[in-house]
Amino acid sequence: MNPFSTNNNVATLSEKKLIARVCSKFGASASLPSPYGAGDDCALIKAKSLQDNVCATSDAVILGRHFAETDSPFLAGEKLIKRNVSDIASMGARPFSALASSICSPNISLDWLDAFSEGMGSACERYAIKIIGGDFASVKDDFFSTHLTLLGQTTLSPLLRTGAKEGDIICTTGVLGASFESGHHLTFQPRLEQGVFFAESGLITSCIDLSDGLGADLRNLLPDGMCAELLEADIPLREFDGKKASIRGAFCDGEDYELLFTFSSKSNFDKFAKEYFAKFGEPIFRIGEIKKAKSSEEENALILISNSKRQKIDFVGFDHYIS
Amino acid sequence: MNPFSTNNNVATLSEKKLIARVCSKFGASASLPSPYGAGDDCALIKAKSLQDNVCATSDAVILGRHFAETDSPFLAGEKLIKRNVSDIASMGARPFSALASSICSPNISLDWLDAFSEGMGSACERYAIKIIGGDFASVKDDFFSTHLTLLGQTTLSPLLRTGAKEGDIICTTGVLGASFESGHHLTFQPRLEQGVFFAESGLITSCIDLSDGLGADLRNLLPDGMCAELLEADIPLREFDGKKASIRGAFCDGEDYELLFTFSSKSNFDKFAKEYFAKFGEPIFRIGEIKKAKSSEEENALILISNSKRQKIDFVGFDHYIS
Repeated sequence: MNPFSTNNNVATLSEKKLIARVCSKFGASASLPSPYGAGDDCALIKAKSLQDNVCATSDAVILGRHFAETDSPFLAGEKLIKRNVSDIASMGARPFSALASSICSPNISLDWLDAFSEGMGSACERYAIKIIGGDFASVKDDFFSTHLTLLGQTTLSPLLRTGAKEGDIICTTGVLGASFESGHHLTFQPRLEQGVFFAESGLITSCIDLSDGLGADLRNLLPDGMCAELLEADIPLREFDGKKASIRGAFCDGEDYELLFTFSSKSNFDKFAKEYFAKFGEPIFRIGEIKKAKSSEEENALILISNSKRQKIDFVGFDHYIS
Repeated sequence: MNPFSTNNNVATLSEKKLIARVCSKFGASASLPSPYGAGDDCALIKAKSLQDNVCATSDAVILGRHFAETDSPFLAGEKLIKRNVSDIASMGARPFSALASSICSPNISLDWLDAFSEGMGSACERYAIKIIGGDFASVKDDFFSTHLTLLGQTTLSPLLRTGAKEGDIICTTGVLGASFESGHHLTFQPRLEQGVFFAESGLITSCIDLSDGLGADLRNLLPDGMCAELLEADIPLREFDGKKASIRGAFCDGEDYELLFTFSSKSNFDKFAKEYFAKFGEPIFRIGEIKKAKSSEEENALILISNSKRQKIDFVGFDHYIS
């Protein structure tokens, strides 16, 4: 669907009518009455209704950057919600409320925006999220972005990036690489229940969601003076359309939205992996181990072992500014 | 300062270094260690540390829209914080945490971004706000925007837009109009302490912050079947550089960031106004009254009275999409 229209576009509506239209497309996800939802200067949340740990994250989708003009606007709207849910999942929490703020040029098509908003609403319903606020701002030229701030909560101890120790096992919840080429970046399911399962287990020493690729994200779990030893043969690569992602793709492509985590070396991994499989019908992928660096060069580095050869990984994963 | 640079720009830094640089410019406002601040997938807030009513709002500043290339980036960064604080103030709450999400083209100058970030940090410090998270996304072409999601809290009953009754007095905390022309949109001080004072008084029946002009915002306070009768001579107009805002400017220009509120007809207004003046050294401006509509045409309308003539106001205030 074309995101732009010369006549049936947002410029034909007042801001108030535009917001009312978008909210109607959110469906049940926008059903909270003001002041607990949109419609006043702020949305309200009763502190009494909150669990121990509240977490907050913010991520956007931008037309031409996180999705293309030719992509389904419904899936783009779902992606906005899901990529933020993935951040909440990596803490072992559950989402509950969101604020959605759009920058939108006057020529954005209303039909296209309807479909985008329906995608947001559909994903919010799936993850029990209420959209409680946000705003619209206008810019010239063909432009559309929406930033979501997502609030989550849990009674459990959140999974953090820090906490991995020497000997801990490095795992992912799914296959990696070629997310854009395969369309996975639009159709993925964030690992929400898996994150909660990890937090409940008490056996996960650190966790992050794979958004920038293994090459970038795994570095965030490494304690000082340690390295990550990865067995090339164990890194699961995405297969699609008779093709297979490359090992470089697993490190660099990004947007896998799998959980990357470390499992305590003192606990029974096989038992845990079996329980996980019984619950989710999918395997955990064990890809390596946290090790003491063998030289100062290996400190905070990723070491790939293939055919008994040790190779330091130099490519660093997706970076928004340096490519 | 030029927002763009061909060599000393954000494209020379990795995203990690860019975020570290920006956080260092936030100063004390970014000092929370992860996971209570930036640095993990989400920021954490302890629910136990929160007061009864948590409120959440989200608003952006966009280069070329909410500030110009020639404006001070420090003041633009302050404006981002202050316009969100103004929303929190209109609920009678105080802010505590913020997430800041930027969309930023690679050619944005680092010096310019430093000054913008310092402005954010300076305003945050003034209002006791910690910046606990956010992100950077890159787009092509000359572009810069930052969305802030601001969380506030109060033990008091929040001031809402709904609650005005027939006979209530309509007031503002300051002069109106010509906000862009006079530079007020960059230099204003949100009425934070005034909002708290209003909530504590228990005498304010409804409240909103004036961001889209009296013509748009006052309509949000009108109960069904009522109108707002305004005395033209009582509407305070901004004076600057030997000029004075027009009455039309007060209704349409927007970005006044004053509180617009209704005072209960059953209470002693003069006593309240005196206490307010004693506390803030500035007057409250009484501009009109909530009245029963005299005809169906006057329902939910703004009626301006000048020289005993009643005139229905047709201009509706600033709208992002229809001008």
